[in-house]
Amino acid sequence: MKVLLNGGVAGRGMKILSERFGDRVSLAQMSAGDEAATIAGHLAWAEVMISINYDAAMPPAPNLKLLQIPASGLDAITLAAVPAQAAVCNVYEHEVAIAEYTFNGMLEWVVGLARRNAAFKGGDWTGTPSLGGATRGELSGMTVGCLGYGNIGRAIARRALAFDMNVMALTRNPRALEPEPTFMGGYGDLGKVLAAVDFLVICCPLTEGTRGIIGAGELAAMKDSAVVINVARGPIADEDALFAALSNGVIGGAVLDTWYQYPSADDQEIRPSKQPFHELDNVLMTPHISGWSEGQQQRRWARTGDNIEALMAGGDLINLIRPAQP
Amino acid sequence: MKVLLNGGVAGRGMKILSERFGDRVSLAQMSAGDEAATIAGHLAWAEVMISINYDAAMPPAPNLKLLQIPASGLDAITLAAVPAQAAVCNVYEHEVAIAEYTFNGMLEWVVGLARRNAAFKGGDWTGTPSLGGATRGELSGMTVGCLGYGNIGRAIARRALAFDMNVMALTRNPRALEPEPTFMGGYGDLGKVLAAVDFLVICCPLTEGTRGIIGAGELAAMKDSAVVINVARGPIADEDALFAALSNGVIGGAVLDTWYQYPSADDQEIRPSKQPFHELDNVLMTPHISGWSEGQQQRRWARTGDNIEALMAGGDLINLIRPAQP
Repeated sequence: MKVLLNGGVAGRGMKILSERFGDRVSLAQMSAGDEAATIAGHLAWAEVMISINYDAAMPPAPNLKLLQIPASGLDAITLAAVPAQAAVCNVYEHEVAIAEYTFNGMLEWVVGLARRNAAFKGGDWTGTPSLGGATRGELSGMTVGCLGYGNIGRAIARRALAFDMNVMALTRNPRALEPEPTFMGGYGDLGKVLAAVDFLVICCPLTEGTRGIIGAGELAAMKDSAVVINVARGPIADEDALFAALSNGVIGGAVLDTWYQYPSADDQEIRPSKQPFHELDNVLMTPHISGWSEGQQQRRWARTGDNIEALMAGGDLINLIRPAQP
Repeated sequence: MKVLLNGGVAGRGMKILSERFGDRVSLAQMSAGDEAATIAGHLAWAEVMISINYDAAMPPAPNLKLLQIPASGLDAITLAAVPAQAAVCNVYEHEVAIAEYTFNGMLEWVVGLARRNAAFKGGDWTGTPSLGGATRGELSGMTVGCLGYGNIGRAIARRALAFDMNVMALTRNPRALEPEPTFMGGYGDLGKVLAAVDFLVICCPLTEGTRGIIGAGELAAMKDSAVVINVARGPIADEDALFAALSNGVIGGAVLDTWYQYPSADDQEIRPSKQPFHELDNVLMTPHISGWSEGQQQRRWARTGDNIEALMAGGDLINLIRPAQP
């Protein structure tokens, strides 16, 4: 089986797949910066391509049987551009890491351990109970809303229920899902959820239906203490509206891991937004690392390998987004 | 009923008890800095005393029926000094707050959201996956040891199990307790636990049996990546041995909320240890705030009021540490 790895994922993938398959596969790697003729040769050769992006600019891939996305997001994939005879699959496996990140964010918001560490290392006992320090809140009894109730939302919910939080889940197709949230609704219930939550976790795919779904009106409908957590894709929350709401105290704060602008090999100085989120004290921000754990990578490459194995053996592909069209 | 409140807790307590009991109680407050004659008058008068400390220097309290400790720790109480005719009770209610603090610490250790926030606000994309950032670990699959499996240890365990962690519990009297930990043992199993844990949470009382129980030998028995979390009392971990282990890479780090030296009204500049823990990058440290939540305070004063009510009505006292001796 001829397997082509594209982009930054290639390094790790070459090693893992080589160890697993040995001479049962031929491996090659490419990157977008390669010469056009080189890329054309790779695509003409490949039976499996592992890539987070694919669009109409890709040269013909007459032998492609599987486009395996080594991540969950499809927003860089133009499905219509993928040759009809190829199946398209993705992987998840990031939900544990993202749920842990989300709790790091909620707990830092409420408990503030790292913030207090900085002050206390400076010698400041402010806040200590014996000197009359102010009390803080508890996650227990608070309400977290999950905009999206797929793998990520449910991983957050399972932990939130153990923390005695209320969980309000929104999903395109409300139905019985484990764990059972305190409230389950469709996107039409967004207003009800916005008014109730202490934390709103954005954990749905970016689609034309969700782009900008959290705008000025939605932010104004939230408590002025509420915190938006975005671990999905930046543009699901409107960039200008979110910045304005944070600057003006419309909401309490945000924990943001996903962005509106990303670095490239040529420009690693770019700020993640045209708005200066980095100047706001009520924002915790990170460079798209919420799901980036060693466990996630090991599980994703295991699933990717499983699909190569299935393709060789004629078995069923997992996480099939689009079947091969005969 | 004549109720005397001692020390820093008095302000909040006067308000809460006054609202609850109205003219059913007479309230007074004192502090250690009052004149001796004033203190003697208060103690001669009181039927209930609410205080976190009591020792042989207290003047006679012939009318005292209840010493109510508005906290959990007994280490500032000399039980033998409390008049025999008085019952002694404490309160807990801090376990939710301390469990949330503990998870803030463990997650900041593994995910590092606040640490990464500081770098990213400075414009540094280091760690972002598309530029080849390193992966991190997951709490999932890690092992947390609870030295003590009372209210705090069990609150931590319930959350840890939802995070798919292994839980090793040590308690003086191993028995079936909810939630069921992965391993349950007595203090004689400390060596087994030390060798296995990624996080060791100290959450037992400070007694002559636990003072210094985590010393140089115990720290050397841990993984060099292990993290000690102390939410109980500083001296349960030997001050010099802990500092040496952290300085020399014997263990990976520590999250420390409880200390060896505390500020007084006269000296708020004192460092929390004679050792410069504040100079160590592998220490997260806070000023004894792990349990200091608004919910904890409301629950503690509710329980304290319940005991005053029980005393007036002849009902059963809750959290009775020592009965009145007729």
